Amino acid sequence: MDVRKFSVPEILFGPGSMKYAALCAKRLGADRVFLVSDGGLEKAGWVERLQSILKAERLEWVYFNKISANPRDQQVNEGVRCYQEAGCDVVMAIGGGSPMDAAKGIAMVASNGGTVQDYEGANRIQHPLPPMVFLPSTAGSGADISQFAIITDMQRQVKMSIISRTLVPNISIIDPELLTTKTEELIVASAIDALSHAVEAYVSSIASTLTENQSLKAIDLIMKYLPMALEGRRMAALDNLSSACTCAAMAFSNASLGLDHALAHSLGGKLDLAHGLIHPILLPAVMRFNLPVCVDKMADIGEIVLGQRTGDAEATAQAGIARLEAFFADLNISTRLRDIVRDDAVLPPICKMATQDACLLTNPREATVDDMVDLCKTCW
Amino acid sequence: MDVRKFSVPEILFGPGSMKYAALCAKRLGADRVFLVSDGGLEKAGWVERLQSILKAERLEWVYFNKISANPRDQQVNEGVRCYQEAGCDVVMAIGGGSPMDAAKGIAMVASNGGTVQDYEGANRIQHPLPPMVFLPSTAGSGADISQFAIITDMQRQVKMSIISRTLVPNISIIDPELLTTKTEELIVASAIDALSHAVEAYVSSIASTLTENQSLKAIDLIMKYLPMALEGRRMAALDNLSSACTCAAMAFSNASLGLDHALAHSLGGKLDLAHGLIHPILLPAVMRFNLPVCVDKMADIGEIVLGQRTGDAEATAQAGIARLEAFFADLNISTRLRDIVRDDAVLPPICKMATQDACLLTNPREATVDDMVDLCKTCW
Repeated sequence: MDVRKFSVPEILFGPGSMKYAALCAKRLGADRVFLVSDGGLEKAGWVERLQSILKAERLEWVYFNKISANPRDQQVNEGVRCYQEAGCDVVMAIGGGSPMDAAKGIAMVASNGGTVQDYEGANRIQHPLPPMVFLPSTAGSGADISQFAIITDMQRQVKMSIISRTLVPNISIIDPELLTTKTEELIVASAIDALSHAVEAYVSSIASTLTENQSLKAIDLIMKYLPMALEGRRMAALDNLSSACTCAAMAFSNASLGLDHALAHSLGGKLDLAHGLIHPILLPAVMRFNLPVCVDKMADIGEIVLGQRTGDAEATAQAGIARLEAFFADLNISTRLRDIVRDDAVLPPICKMATQDACLLTNPREATVDDMVDLCKTCW
Repeated sequence: MDVRKFSVPEILFGPGSMKYAALCAKRLGADRVFLVSDGGLEKAGWVERLQSILKAERLEWVYFNKISANPRDQQVNEGVRCYQEAGCDVVMAIGGGSPMDAAKGIAMVASNGGTVQDYEGANRIQHPLPPMVFLPSTAGSGADISQFAIITDMQRQVKMSIISRTLVPNISIIDPELLTTKTEELIVASAIDALSHAVEAYVSSIASTLTENQSLKAIDLIMKYLPMALEGRRMAALDNLSSACTCAAMAFSNASLGLDHALAHSLGGKLDLAHGLIHPILLPAVMRFNLPVCVDKMADIGEIVLGQRTGDAEATAQAGIARLEAFFADLNISTRLRDIVRDDAVLPPICKMATQDACLLTNPREATVDDMVDLCKTCW
C-alpha cells in the first residue's frame, strides 16, 4: 500500500452560511479582496448580496467578472493584471466551476508568475497562493474543495487539468440557498458532474478508504435527492445535493479521476462544451470499459444505485450501469454523442488529445487511442 | 438546519509515511522543531528514527518527554518554558493521545499566554498556534485530526476539554507501522476509544451528513478489523484500524461527543484512568439512555454492528447494543465499573463534575446528575 494524501479545505456548510464570508476573509488577513464571479450570479442578486456582506465588515474589494463558461487562459491573464494592479491580498470566488477555476488560475499565476500553461499537469506549482475563500453556487464542480483547476488553452483548444495541493482553497462556504436561483438544467448537469466525480474516484487506482467512503455516500445522495431537488427546489434536497457534491469532491480531489474526465476535457476543450452535458453520454460506456478490471467495486456502485445486489458481482455491476443509463434518460438530457458532436471525424484527434490528460493516469484500466475511439463509437 | 463546520488537517496516510515528517515540517517553515514524545515511543525506537529523519533534512530539534499518561497542566507549563527558551518554531508530536494533547497544550499556551485553564471549554483560543505536525502511534485518540485537547487539572482533579478549530494540527502523518510495536491491550483500548468517538459523534445533536458518513465507516472497520489486528499485527488490519480511527476523528472533531465522554473525562480526571478502559463499561449504558431520542440512528449503528436489521428500528438498535457488549466481553477487558472504581461513594461528585464538560452539550438527550448516577449504577 502506497502513501495516500488527503487534503480538504475548512468548510462552512448550510443555508445562510454566506453571511460568514467577510469574517472568513478577514481571518485570512484580507484588506482588499479580489472578488470573482459572473453575469449569472449578478443577475440572481448574489454578487450584490456578497458585496454588502464585505461592506458591512469594512473590507475593500475589486470585482472581476470577465469570465466565460469554460474559463480561458487569456481571461486568467487579464484577471492577474487586475489583481496585481489593485494590490489585492485574498481571492474570493462566488459561482460555479468556471468563476472558481478562473479564480484559482488567477491566484496561481499572480503568485507564481509565468502563464497557466506552465502549471499544466500534476504538482507543478512551487510557491504558495494567496488565501482563497470560495462560495460554490452549483452542487457540481467541487472546485471549492478540490486540488483541480480546469482552464481552456484557446490555441490548442484543450481544457488543461492543473492539479496541485496548493489549489485547495483555504475556506469553502457552501450555502445551499444559492441553488434556489438555478435552472433545472444547471442543477441536473451539476449533479451529474458530481456523480461522475464520485464514480471515477471510487474506481481510481489511487482510491483509499477515506475517499471510497465519500464516493459511495455521494452516489447514494445524488440518486435519492436529485429528483426531489427538481420538484420545487426543496431546501432539504438542495442541502443533500450540496453534501453529495462535497463528498464527491473530497473523493476526486484526493483520488483523482479517470477516462471519462480525460475524454470530457478533450471534447469540452475542442467544442467548448460544459462537463455536465458530456458525462451522461460517456460515463456508462466508460464504466463498462473499466468493468473487467474492477468488478467488485462496480458492484458496490451497482448496489448503491439499485438499493440491493442482484446476483453476483458482475450482474450487480451491469444492472447498476443500466440503471444509471435509465436515470440519465429520465432527466431529459442528451444521452448520445451525436447530439452534441456534429461530425465524428473529430473523434480520433480528440481521443489522441485525451491521452495527454492527467486524469487518465488513475483510470483503473489502460486505454489506447483506439480503445477511446471505439468507446466513443458505442456512444454515438 | 444550522451552519455546520468541517475542518480536518492535511493527511499523509500509509505504512512508511513517517519518512515525510521532516519535509512536512520544513514546508511549514521549521528551523527548530519542538519534538514531543514519551518513554514508550523511545523504547520502541520510534523517537530515534524520527530524529534521524529530522537530521537527514538538517533540521534542529529540542526534545521534550516529561509527560505522563493523561497529561497534566504543570507538564504543559514546563513544556512551554522549554519551547520558548529554545526558540522553536514548529511543534511535532509522535505518540498516543497523551503526548499529542500535551503538545497541543504547549503550542496553545506558548502562543496565547496564560494557563491551560484559561482555554477550557469551546472556542476560547484567540491567537494562531505555531504549525503542528503530528504522528499518531495508536489508532485511537484522533488527537492528530481533532479540534480537541484533554489536559488534567491536577488541583481540581478533572480532565479539561479544550475545543477549538485552531487545535487541528496542520499535518497529520498516519503511519500504521507504528502500531506494530504496541501491546494487545493498548490496541484494544485505542480501538474502543475510536469506536466510542464514532458512536457518540453519530448521535450528536450537531452531526451532519459529512460526519455521519465517517462515523458509520469507522464503526464498520473497527468491528471487522480489530479482531484481525490482534492476530499477529497484520499490516492490512492495522492499516484499516488506522483508517477507522481517522474517520472517527473526522466525525467527532466536527460533531463533538456526548455523555459517555463527559463521564469518562470526569472519572478519568478523578481516578487517573485512561479513556480506553472506561468506554467499554459506560458506552452501552449511555447508548441505552440515549436510545429513546434517537431510535433510527441507533438502529443504523445496530445494522452496521450486526450486519443486518433484525425487526424494527428499536429491535435493531437494542440488538446492536447487546452485540457491542458481547464484542467488548470477548476482548478480555473490564466491563463493570466496580473493576476500575473502588468505592461507589465517588460517583455523585464525579457525575456532578461531568455536567461541566463541554462534551455534554451535544449529547442527544439531556442528562441530570441523578440520571448519570443511575446510569453508573447500572454499570456497577
